[in-house]
Amino acid sequence: MTVKPEWEAYLQTHRERFLAELVEFLRIPSISALSAHAGDVARAASWVFHRLQKAGLHHVQVLATGGHPVVYGDWLLAPDKPTVLIYGHFDIQPVDPLAQWESPPFDPVIRAGHIYARGASDDKGNMLSPVAAVEALLAGGGLPVNVKFLFEGQEEIGSPQLPEFLARQRDLLACDLVVSADGLQWSPDQPKIDLGFRGIAAFQIDVRGPAADQHSGLYGGVLHNPNQALSRILASFHDAQGRILVEGFYDDVLDLSAEDRIHLAELPFEADRLADRLQVPELFGPPEYAPLERIGARPTLEICGMGGGFQGEGMKSIIPACAQAKISCRLVADQRPERIIAAVRRHVKRIPLPGVRVEIREIPGSAVPYLMPADHAGIRAAANVLETLYGTPPYLTREGGSIAACALFLKELGAYTVSFSFSCADENLHAPNEFFRIESMERGQKGYVLLLMKLGEELGGGTASSE
Amino acid sequence: MTVKPEWEAYLQTHRERFLAELVEFLRIPSISALSAHAGDVARAASWVFHRLQKAGLHHVQVLATGGHPVVYGDWLLAPDKPTVLIYGHFDIQPVDPLAQWESPPFDPVIRAGHIYARGASDDKGNMLSPVAAVEALLAGGGLPVNVKFLFEGQEEIGSPQLPEFLARQRDLLACDLVVSADGLQWSPDQPKIDLGFRGIAAFQIDVRGPAADQHSGLYGGVLHNPNQALSRILASFHDAQGRILVEGFYDDVLDLSAEDRIHLAELPFEADRLADRLQVPELFGPPEYAPLERIGARPTLEICGMGGGFQGEGMKSIIPACAQAKISCRLVADQRPERIIAAVRRHVKRIPLPGVRVEIREIPGSAVPYLMPADHAGIRAAANVLETLYGTPPYLTREGGSIAACALFLKELGAYTVSFSFSCADENLHAPNEFFRIESMERGQKGYVLLLMKLGEELGGGTASSE
Repeated sequence: MTVKPEWEAYLQTHRERFLAELVEFLRIPSISALSAHAGDVARAASWVFHRLQKAGLHHVQVLATGGHPVVYGDWLLAPDKPTVLIYGHFDIQPVDPLAQWESPPFDPVIRAGHIYARGASDDKGNMLSPVAAVEALLAGGGLPVNVKFLFEGQEEIGSPQLPEFLARQRDLLACDLVVSADGLQWSPDQPKIDLGFRGIAAFQIDVRGPAADQHSGLYGGVLHNPNQALSRILASFHDAQGRILVEGFYDDVLDLSAEDRIHLAELPFEADRLADRLQVPELFGPPEYAPLERIGARPTLEICGMGGGFQGEGMKSIIPACAQAKISCRLVADQRPERIIAAVRRHVKRIPLPGVRVEIREIPGSAVPYLMPADHAGIRAAANVLETLYGTPPYLTREGGSIAACALFLKELGAYTVSFSFSCADENLHAPNEFFRIESMERGQKGYVLLLMKLGEELGGGTASSE
Repeated sequence: MTVKPEWEAYLQTHRERFLAELVEFLRIPSISALSAHAGDVARAASWVFHRLQKAGLHHVQVLATGGHPVVYGDWLLAPDKPTVLIYGHFDIQPVDPLAQWESPPFDPVIRAGHIYARGASDDKGNMLSPVAAVEALLAGGGLPVNVKFLFEGQEEIGSPQLPEFLARQRDLLACDLVVSADGLQWSPDQPKIDLGFRGIAAFQIDVRGPAADQHSGLYGGVLHNPNQALSRILASFHDAQGRILVEGFYDDVLDLSAEDRIHLAELPFEADRLADRLQVPELFGPPEYAPLERIGARPTLEICGMGGGFQGEGMKSIIPACAQAKISCRLVADQRPERIIAAVRRHVKRIPLPGVRVEIREIPGSAVPYLMPADHAGIRAAANVLETLYGTPPYLTREGGSIAACALFLKELGAYTVSFSFSCADENLHAPNEFFRIESMERGQKGYVLLLMKLGEELGGGTASSE
């Protein structure tokens, strides 16, 4: 019989307390999007502050950002060892529609091994796992690497003050690797590591015709209808199979290597099943790329919204004064939001549109795409730990969504971010009846202990840890 | 010194009473669009009933239509003379925005020779002129033609029950010519006669994608965005200069004759001035037709409304579940609404749109275009009278808007409709502070006396008058 390591015994001993702490944390309605809850976000920051202190971390502090605060804490007593920055967030999504919750969102309930509450899965349940792991290791004497914690309170609203905060706190946050405790596994039985996230560039097109809506009988034949002009612009963006026709749009896209394509092709994916679930006749997109390539490794240009003229019941025979479209491009490495917006501007300028005025405005909230090498030491370490935990190696995936923080850490701190988080996509993130698997909490605690050990052995660096 | 004819003296003697009657009539808020005012529309019908009786007409009656009623009255004692049906309406538009009225819309006020009230110009002021004219002639002994009055109470809502009513009452309404007391002159100094009105065919296009809005990060690359598919459809309808590309769309359009084009070219029209007034950089439309030809004698296909996805402030990165457009085609002789809708259906069906579902639904309220020969005896008679009244001959025009009744009279009664009405476009029809020029009332009364006389001399027919 093998003797359990000290940290594992510690985690087991304190299991009930960790769960009780999560319940307490989940009772705080730290909704960052609603100004009425700004005080609750601050309360959650304070709760995290005390939790880090209890775990034995040093320099614990709540830092102002201009928006919701950030909580920092570190342990830097491993000279010549690398420094790992662990990231997560204590703010949560709003709860509406409230009527669809089976139990109140801030009154956590445990049913069949799941804990139900807003924020359970995204991200409170996850972010406490590395804290418990570090506490357990510190109880045993120390950490195999230097650790810094950075928990923020505005992830759910797009981290508007994070870029400036990171730029200002480069020295405090210097590290060799970021590990993100915010993210998903493929399923409860299958791990994954996201190597990339798409970036985002968004803009609005406004087409203006006559100063006011006009009678289509009196003026139909002499006015360029803004809806017609806008449709011409919007239809010019894609060919019939969905390829983007904006000149220069694909210029900075890194081609998928043969190896990348093999990786992606190995992932289970059934087009018919997805089409059934989304209730579309068939999937759509440039056929020279497989669906998972198109989601993770190819950029898109989506008309998220468009509107002009009369949209009520029945009919109003008008030529509208104006029409608008909101467009969001998902970008992949090495595309840059500003270059994409410029290419779109040039494209639209080349379309002859007499009789109307066209304006393109960037919508704030762009994100640079993120991609890290599959053979990075951090990925190897995480993959090794995940295989130990799940008994099967992780898929190496590219996520179609956007997490601005990863590219920001790379830019401001020069460090890659490894996603290491234990939520599953079925846990109703951002929806009613959000839950977290309690086994994921324990898997996460053990995973973080093993990951920090592995990184201590394998990760280069050690310069960042000297303050 | 010439002696004034008896009818002219009669009109002068009763001038104040006619004005007082109009004021009384205008106090009735007979808004056909608002069900709360249905009783007021009925009250207006009753008022018209009594007014026709007072004028000396026979067979006066309020007739049910299934919607708002119709008022009928006749005088058929001129054997071997033609029968003229005089048309107008006693229902009115709603009054909002009420705050913009300088005096209450149902409390008529006379300022500087104008009478201000909702319905003053459209159409209560106009429709009373032929009644006064007939009363004056009857006071003198009789009419030069047989006359039937048909006043309806649902013109402002598109006369939904009129087609069926006309079909049912063909015998009662049989006539040689219709004269419409609903319409406009070019200006207070310049008469015009509308030879044509455009028809109308309207439809809605619905494009459906996934069952619900989807995250553009998670599914961007595998879904056909309904906004994108709809834009492709909408952009396919026109070329860059506004010509309609729907196969067969122009098939039934009657070409403008050389004479038609000369007529239209003689009308005063300044493109730059219209562009300035509508505040567009320039007018737009197929350059091989002049602007007035494009408004009056060429069909259009206008996207009156379109919408799909997120249209609020800021941004929501979604692929929407669906997108819609409402389209209205203005038609010219001899186009038919049903053939146009069928051509659009064929056109859309030919566009490959995988991954979405497209549906086209006709929107009720179609109208057949109307055009009458410029050399018709009714036009000659009206032109002659207008030249007498104004001292200058009328423009012969084609109106870009739609009046369903004209084509209906032609179809059901086999009779053309001559527009003979004395409102002016600056009188705020359908807008706050609607007014009617009191001089137009008197001009209209005199005009109708002269027109009936002229028609008695020149119009063929006489068969319709024998009941």
